[in-house]
Amino acid sequence: MKKVAVLGSTGSIGTQTLDVIRQHPEQFRVSLLACGQNIELVKKQIAEFQPAVVAIAKESDLGKLEAHLPTETRAIAGESALLDALAETEAEFVMHAMVGSQGLKPTMAAIKAGKTIGIANKETLVTAGHLVTAASNRYGAQLIAVDSEHSAILQSMQGSNRGDVERLIITASGGSFRDWSAEEIQHAAPEDALKHPNWSMGQKVTIDSATMMNKGLEVIEAHWLFDMPYENIDVVIHRESIVHSLVEYQDKSVIAQLGTPDMKGPIQYALSFPDRLELEGPERLNLWEVGTLNFEKIDPVKHRCLLMAYQAGEAGGSAPTVLNAANEVAVQRFLEGKLSFPGIATVIENALAAHTVAAAPSIEEVLEIDEETRKRVRNGSER
Amino acid sequence: MKKVAVLGSTGSIGTQTLDVIRQHPEQFRVSLLACGQNIELVKKQIAEFQPAVVAIAKESDLGKLEAHLPTETRAIAGESALLDALAETEAEFVMHAMVGSQGLKPTMAAIKAGKTIGIANKETLVTAGHLVTAASNRYGAQLIAVDSEHSAILQSMQGSNRGDVERLIITASGGSFRDWSAEEIQHAAPEDALKHPNWSMGQKVTIDSATMMNKGLEVIEAHWLFDMPYENIDVVIHRESIVHSLVEYQDKSVIAQLGTPDMKGPIQYALSFPDRLELEGPERLNLWEVGTLNFEKIDPVKHRCLLMAYQAGEAGGSAPTVLNAANEVAVQRFLEGKLSFPGIATVIENALAAHTVAAAPSIEEVLEIDEETRKRVRNGSER
Repeated sequence: MKKVAVLGSTGSIGTQTLDVIRQHPEQFRVSLLACGQNIELVKKQIAEFQPAVVAIAKESDLGKLEAHLPTETRAIAGESALLDALAETEAEFVMHAMVGSQGLKPTMAAIKAGKTIGIANKETLVTAGHLVTAASNRYGAQLIAVDSEHSAILQSMQGSNRGDVERLIITASGGSFRDWSAEEIQHAAPEDALKHPNWSMGQKVTIDSATMMNKGLEVIEAHWLFDMPYENIDVVIHRESIVHSLVEYQDKSVIAQLGTPDMKGPIQYALSFPDRLELEGPERLNLWEVGTLNFEKIDPVKHRCLLMAYQAGEAGGSAPTVLNAANEVAVQRFLEGKLSFPGIATVIENALAAHTVAAAPSIEEVLEIDEETRKRVRNGSER
Repeated sequence: MKKVAVLGSTGSIGTQTLDVIRQHPEQFRVSLLACGQNIELVKKQIAEFQPAVVAIAKESDLGKLEAHLPTETRAIAGESALLDALAETEAEFVMHAMVGSQGLKPTMAAIKAGKTIGIANKETLVTAGHLVTAASNRYGAQLIAVDSEHSAILQSMQGSNRGDVERLIITASGGSFRDWSAEEIQHAAPEDALKHPNWSMGQKVTIDSATMMNKGLEVIEAHWLFDMPYENIDVVIHRESIVHSLVEYQDKSVIAQLGTPDMKGPIQYALSFPDRLELEGPERLNLWEVGTLNFEKIDPVKHRCLLMAYQAGEAGGSAPTVLNAANEVAVQRFLEGKLSFPGIATVIENALAAHTVAAAPSIEEVLEIDEETRKRVRNGSER
């Protein structure tokens, strides 16, 4: 019986994690649920999973829970209470699906407690990869990829020597604009960008997929998760999203993980790793029904955001923090109709140009640089 | 330093095995070379690799070797001398690339000596799978696939629990006639069938690829190598021969091995298993250069030979021996212009219909049934 904490339990990854756990009551038990302000949903989750601890964002919401707590469940609120709970929880596995840079401190708390952590919080590796990997080594914590691409790489590396790995090849659907010309993209509206062809995801990730910044962030995550130099990480456009990523070995053999697009697969793999369990939900892959798998090269003009991510990754230190923060605000401005689609890349480019890279920032410095960048970019003049 | 015996050293797999060994003088040493009648080539191999033993088919050829033997090399001739040499050799790994049913007894000798065996001899598993797997378990020998398809499956299974494997999916190029109609195939000539689109192979294998009997034999081999029921082994047409085969797990995740078509990859993987080594020769796979991977369903009319192989496999016992022997002679008759292309399937069908299956034949019985079938089929009346 593996005891599990779910951070971000009311979000997309969080609810799917609970879907998976629900299928295997003999394998997993929920010890801790953490969420933000969706009190209605977490009430149902508490009733079903009866965790020892439920952590919510705001103290003022505690009252709404009280009447609904089973006797064995303790409710807490705020960041510092969550960090304490992570230090004390009986959970061995932490599914970390909180959104944004608020996820950083919980990551470090789980690492210091020596947990196995399913990493679905992008900021953890993008903006603090140097701290997180060093701390994991020190405290014997294990980070397991939850993104479909990184899960595919992890699955394609099983049973092999790390020294035999030559190259990681991350696949990209190409997003909503893969068939648009650079001309047409100039005038793309938010509603165009939000039509993702393969995956049903949140707004932010869907726009990131259209700019290919999501792949850029994944390249940086892969660098840290798999200790791989940037020049040995490739991205290839694969419009069907069936091959989730690939690993090339020194004998030129390539191992790939395939499947129909469904996040429950990577989520369960992280939970059951290195074993596998049966899984209801995803469709079985039937290659002759899919028929054709296509692969295309990255376009340096159309995929400017991806190239900037490589550059920020290579620059290291605080550069990826600025990249990520500037991107988040730029996407927000685009969604509000205050920025053109190509303006997203320009905003990020300007933010990186204005920043002097700190080589090895602490968590506090990372959060400060993140905050400053957001402030500056929010008031930017780009259109 | 792994000591290696190469059986069939002058054939296609044998010479490529020596190409691989030549790249890694610090990893492999050739202890034994066995070949048939290509004395000129084995002379060069002896001079280069200085094996302890060289085994040739005919006693009358020993004289041609004498003047060319290094002092440390002993030359022997005939089957029984080879079997003795396999029992005594210092080699830990036997690359078994002899052609035909004459390969059976050497397989059993290597198994009894507890060797690790790279299996490139089809008959070993097709006609004696029940004996070979039982003996391997008893003597602690290990069989490693060398076919590109089975190597792909082995590679896609690394680091996983066998119980998690749900299904094997073997890819098939579809052979020379994949774009011909059933009508056109009626009148196909040997020279048409010999034009294989992706792989450069011997005549027999190329015709087997056109009839899809090669996949049928591979399905039977996969059944024995990976202890997998026939209903959990699929075949899918994949004309580019880039995805060499796939493994589906119980969580619906699919792991695949990909690469440019080059037998040196699977050969070296068998030699270095479970590790990998650098390898010169195969082109690196570049998916955006390949562009498109296609997958098609098996056609029960066009791929009659494949379906017969499934049936013979399910019937078990001596049925696959008859399938294989009848096929070999039918292909020979087709190449001699004495049988139409669809006649190959008819010959096999008739041979299977005329045979009463022996449930668990011994090696001697297998060889006898093999011989009898060949005789009967050679004089068949099918056209």
